[in-house]
Amino acid sequence: MKTALTIAGSDSSGGAGIQADLKTMTLNGVFAMSAVTALTAQNTTGVSGIYEVTPDFLKEQIDMVFTDIFPDAVKIGMASSAALIEVIAERLVFHQARNIVVDPVMVAASGSRLMRADAVTALAEKLLPIAALVTPNIPEAEVLAEMEIRSAADMEEAARVICDRCGCGVLVKGGHSLQEANDLLCREGKCQWFMGRRIDNPNSHGTGCTLSSAIAANLAKGFDLEESVRRAKDYVTGALAAMLDLGKGAGPMNHAFDLNSRFAEFPNP
Amino acid sequence: MKTALTIAGSDSSGGAGIQADLKTMTLNGVFAMSAVTALTAQNTTGVSGIYEVTPDFLKEQIDMVFTDIFPDAVKIGMASSAALIEVIAERLVFHQARNIVVDPVMVAASGSRLMRADAVTALAEKLLPIAALVTPNIPEAEVLAEMEIRSAADMEEAARVICDRCGCGVLVKGGHSLQEANDLLCREGKCQWFMGRRIDNPNSHGTGCTLSSAIAANLAKGFDLEESVRRAKDYVTGALAAMLDLGKGAGPMNHAFDLNSRFAEFPNP
Repeated sequence: MKTALTIAGSDSSGGAGIQADLKTMTLNGVFAMSAVTALTAQNTTGVSGIYEVTPDFLKEQIDMVFTDIFPDAVKIGMASSAALIEVIAERLVFHQARNIVVDPVMVAASGSRLMRADAVTALAEKLLPIAALVTPNIPEAEVLAEMEIRSAADMEEAARVICDRCGCGVLVKGGHSLQEANDLLCREGKCQWFMGRRIDNPNSHGTGCTLSSAIAANLAKGFDLEESVRRAKDYVTGALAAMLDLGKGAGPMNHAFDLNSRFAEFPNP
Repeated sequence: MKTALTIAGSDSSGGAGIQADLKTMTLNGVFAMSAVTALTAQNTTGVSGIYEVTPDFLKEQIDMVFTDIFPDAVKIGMASSAALIEVIAERLVFHQARNIVVDPVMVAASGSRLMRADAVTALAEKLLPIAALVTPNIPEAEVLAEMEIRSAADMEEAARVICDRCGCGVLVKGGHSLQEANDLLCREGKCQWFMGRRIDNPNSHGTGCTLSSAIAANLAKGFDLEESVRRAKDYVTGALAAMLDLGKGAGPMNHAFDLNSRFAEFPNP
């Protein structure tokens, strides 16, 4: 069985963070492990508390994983301080980690800023150079490329700037703000659009976490980057199209929409 | 979709704790959420670090879950201090939680003691009286019943003592120490044996977490207690029988053994 590690925050409401990653990786057929960067008390209406782990304790978690069950891919989500990002980069280099996918979580869906300025610098200088792929949405790509994005041409320019600067593949997600669900993958000078099906579902909590961990799971299984992005987009589309409706705010997707198991049965009426 | 909450520790290696619970609940067809009691840095060979959350932060996580997506069942795992157990019991009463399953995690598979003496008292006096079921293994049943267990008759006596004292259902797990995989369910004066198939698999990290969260998931879906125990035992048997072999110590089970999804595919050779 192939294995994957998520290094990210914990979302008590189960729809995003390591919870979404563990569900996604498991449903995509790999054994999932996690190193927690922060605990949050949150639900679909907002975040009421955050506890950030120390860089030492994060290092300890990462080391315990790598020295026993080596992950075939690593997904990195919320890491809000430069110190956390630096320890992640340092340990991944030390352990010679492969198939690293970075979801540069900077702003929560609710609008709260999740990453400090020095953390963005650490991300660009330490973490992205060792990554296979970074998956910014439009606002995050604007920060990383230091430019405004208002058109598909801007998306392409920003992706090329990030590629050149950080030396990793870039998937700029059009998302809701631009180009609907069309995403742009660029690496080594080549760019390619992935046309997505727009799902009219306001319950999209955790889509970014889910996409990046599905890409990591597919890389772990041996699919190439392009095919991994295509399969991950299909998975997110299916999870959104299942139209789960939980919670008072932007609710979670149904990660188990394709689960056809005897264990998912309900009692006979 | 039915929903379930796990209140437990985080296992970085993914085989036990909230990670096992989230995988189990998801594969058993319910939407899974989590309130983290402690973070551990661990792998299949041992635990190198524990960070326990404060009772206030645990309360915050539980409240955020209950006030938004009400769980149809609650599983409680590792909670090592009286203060944590008291806050769990107090909030579950406040929110009128139902279908509460308690896995009284006292000793790690590696032998390290995970629960202090005052915590055992809080468990028996505050948490078990509001639970539908508690799922001790033999050593845990010995602590809760304050007696030695050396035979099937002892198991039955201990179960009755715990039932009478705490007023909840009891599933005493024979496990490896006694009666192989045969478990004894007692409640309201009636006892029933569940004969299990003994799987010769040393990779049994997380079986207790998995069994209790599978019971909770089945209660959430509307199965009665007896049928939920039966289905959960089948699930654990299947996850063990898949013979996953990861890590240098007692490795995890394959929670996704019955996953027959297009998203679990591997590339063509």
